[in-house]
Amino acid sequence: MPIAALTLADIRAAHDRIRDKIHRTPVLTSAWLDAEAGAQLYFKCENFQKVGAFKARGAANAVFSLTDAEAAAGVATHSSGNHAAALARAARLRGIPAYIVMPTNAPRVKQEAVRGYGGRIIFCEPTLAAREAACAQVLTETGASLVHPYNDYRVMAGQGTAAVEFMEAVPDLDIIMVPVGGGGLVSGTAVAAKGLRPGLRVVAAEPAQADDAYRSFTDGRLRPVGAGVTIADGLRTSLGALNFPIIREHVDAIVTVSEEAIVAAMRRIWSVLKIIVEPSCAVPYAAILEGRLPVAGRRVGLILTGGNVDLDSLPWMHP
Amino acid sequence: MPIAALTLADIRAAHDRIRDKIHRTPVLTSAWLDAEAGAQLYFKCENFQKVGAFKARGAANAVFSLTDAEAAAGVATHSSGNHAAALARAARLRGIPAYIVMPTNAPRVKQEAVRGYGGRIIFCEPTLAAREAACAQVLTETGASLVHPYNDYRVMAGQGTAAVEFMEAVPDLDIIMVPVGGGGLVSGTAVAAKGLRPGLRVVAAEPAQADDAYRSFTDGRLRPVGAGVTIADGLRTSLGALNFPIIREHVDAIVTVSEEAIVAAMRRIWSVLKIIVEPSCAVPYAAILEGRLPVAGRRVGLILTGGNVDLDSLPWMHP
Repeated sequence: MPIAALTLADIRAAHDRIRDKIHRTPVLTSAWLDAEAGAQLYFKCENFQKVGAFKARGAANAVFSLTDAEAAAGVATHSSGNHAAALARAARLRGIPAYIVMPTNAPRVKQEAVRGYGGRIIFCEPTLAAREAACAQVLTETGASLVHPYNDYRVMAGQGTAAVEFMEAVPDLDIIMVPVGGGGLVSGTAVAAKGLRPGLRVVAAEPAQADDAYRSFTDGRLRPVGAGVTIADGLRTSLGALNFPIIREHVDAIVTVSEEAIVAAMRRIWSVLKIIVEPSCAVPYAAILEGRLPVAGRRVGLILTGGNVDLDSLPWMHP
Repeated sequence: MPIAALTLADIRAAHDRIRDKIHRTPVLTSAWLDAEAGAQLYFKCENFQKVGAFKARGAANAVFSLTDAEAAAGVATHSSGNHAAALARAARLRGIPAYIVMPTNAPRVKQEAVRGYGGRIIFCEPTLAAREAACAQVLTETGASLVHPYNDYRVMAGQGTAAVEFMEAVPDLDIIMVPVGGGGLVSGTAVAAKGLRPGLRVVAAEPAQADDAYRSFTDGRLRPVGAGVTIADGLRTSLGALNFPIIREHVDAIVTVSEEAIVAAMRRIWSVLKIIVEPSCAVPYAAILEGRLPVAGRRVGLILTGGNVDLDSLPWMHP
């Protein structure tokens, strides 16, 4: 049964449910990056999370929220990547099947991850309509439960657990930043952040070339667009209908960044923090690099969302 | 005044001296890598250390061991890379000059790091003889104190602090593995490990193409060789005269690995652990991948020594 709305209590319950199924990821800092930004930056490393992305949280919460009767028929989703692997993993942990509808152009590394966790892949054309049609067919044929990658309160509650851990590790943040695609992470983060510390500013960052969240936020009504052409492949989707009202209520600002800044931010994080992050993950730091958000003298927390990249195809190798 | 020999007490004193000048680096694990190895692997992430390498420890201990009178004239060294940056940083922390003799073929990223910390670079030909001659000249001209990259008890004591932290974090290791080049890290690690837990096996890993430590260890006498032609640029040097007796006494085995295994190990660590490690750093894990050491069912600690790589020139891009 879906939760009626998303509250801090839901996020705390999710944390209790999934705590032993996820990593409590570390927070990294860098004197170099602080000096460059003129701010104190804290990086919550969800790239070290199970399946290499925060998506492990929401998927685990959804799968372990099911009743045994519901779970028996398995779970299904459509996803461009990390949620797919995360759902396959959560399903394996519970011993149930996972049916994953993926676009044919999903990165190879992410397809392999799904197979590695025992997920069953059904390919479709790379449009939202084709994905949803293929997914509906799977649901009809199998009786599986849909676990949408972001338009699902159970998923949002799970994603919000990263912010809870972050604020436990760094209690006095001034700003918390996350990338926004469908809106699952930012919904959970915003509810957790405002629930725990109402004065904390919540800022979402988005590629300018896939700026539906920015447009929706600015216009005050949902403005979905076609799949954006951005290197940040995890952020090409538009905001979910359940996510948008939460974002309107709890998010303070949405900023957009250029493709060049995303690549520069990704490379800077690799070089200085010595960690692997995927392009989508670098979008909030790109906003700082590009001066899209005043951060001077502030304590800024950035959730690094994932680290699944194809090491044979790095953006600075193919300008 | 140099320490007469290397003891656990020296390493503990070093830790007290440098604790507030270094990171206490995290230990990472991976269910994937454990399953592949049939062992429990623990990775101590010195790639996250200040200057991106464990060398920050030894350099800081040496610089902060100097009397004020000694320190006033500065410090000098010859180094192929990470020690150079580490000494420049430690000197800046103490407010004294650092003179760094570097081979002309040192990686660009490591030259920039030295300059970034205010070190003064003196270039020389890429031979040990040329480095030592250039360094001797600098010492004469400036009165600086030599801080050798490995043939120095203060440096060895500093490097040994990583093993102390590692054993505090994972008290029941069966094996601890480090790469060996000049022998500074392995000397400190071995004395710390055997001092704290005599039954712990200490294993050093070395590129087969720069295997002077293996040869020296096997023959029972120091067998220096010319600079090895290995991708592991931090391990091209031969064992130091002060390091060898410590290694003979405290190290249980030295294993060698192929260049192919080094690249495969580096890539595997990037892909699975989502962290940046340099080729030298991947050598112990390469030994596990290549089956050079029986580890089945054992708890194995690997010190990941550094993360300074040129992101424009990755080994799998240029086979």
